[in-house]
Amino acid sequence: MINVILISHGDLGAALLQAAEMIAGPAEATQVVSLYPGEAPETFGEKLEAALAEVGGQEVLILIDLFGGTPYNVAVRYVLQDNVECVTGANLPMLLEVLMSRDTASLSELADSITQAGQESVKNLGPLLAKRS
Amino acid sequence: MINVILISHGDLGAALLQAAEMIAGPAEATQVVSLYPGEAPETFGEKLEAALAEVGGQEVLILIDLFGGTPYNVAVRYVLQDNVECVTGANLPMLLEVLMSRDTASLSELADSITQAGQESVKNLGPLLAKRS
Repeated sequence: MINVILISHGDLGAALLQAAEMIAGPAEATQVVSLYPGEAPETFGEKLEAALAEVGGQEVLILIDLFGGTPYNVAVRYVLQDNVECVTGANLPMLLEVLMSRDTASLSELADSITQAGQESVKNLGPLLAKRS
Repeated sequence: MINVILISHGDLGAALLQAAEMIAGPAEATQVVSLYPGEAPETFGEKLEAALAEVGGQEVLILIDLFGGTPYNVAVRYVLQDNVECVTGANLPMLLEVLMSRDTASLSELADSITQAGQESVKNLGPLLAKRS
């Protein structure tokens, strides 16, 4: 099973996991690393290092809330390492796709499939439901 | 200013708002409606009705965590009403785009622009940073 680390501003990662577990049940091998107001990037970096040490070199997908900002800036250093993939713009459909697919996909396939799932999950319902012509 | 209602499973909407406020400062005219475990769709619907009553017929963008599921199923009833737009797949970049653009865009423009911002915010960093050929 591919490990997951959710990283975010504040409690967003924890809330994403809570929401996913409401729908899909308890998630194994999933960690959350949060940046709190006033926290230095170095402190956040140490927390991410600890989460990666927990994974112990196994495959890990890092889901990042935002392209840019401290969580991204710290995590992007790891993306060129073996066994690490990073995807930004984390939302609930992406996390559900991870939890459903991580037993069968390779790490790079998983990163590709959740990127596609994330992009497709953003829908403007007005035009979709023919509100406007 | 266009009103915003964030609706989600659990505390995801509240955490999105907290994260956005860490970056962009306090957000006005922004409400959160949460579905908690074991809560009936009817109860959630009453909470959304109360949030819409607070808006009082002014323009409102409803940001939904997931296409499908109770928050979506309840909110989609409102999308054909005047002054209501709904977008699914809520993530932090979309909420930041709302907070930056809602003073100048029309409601339908705002729904379009955050949909585009949301889709573009989902990036697979490995290929983007030339990890794979």
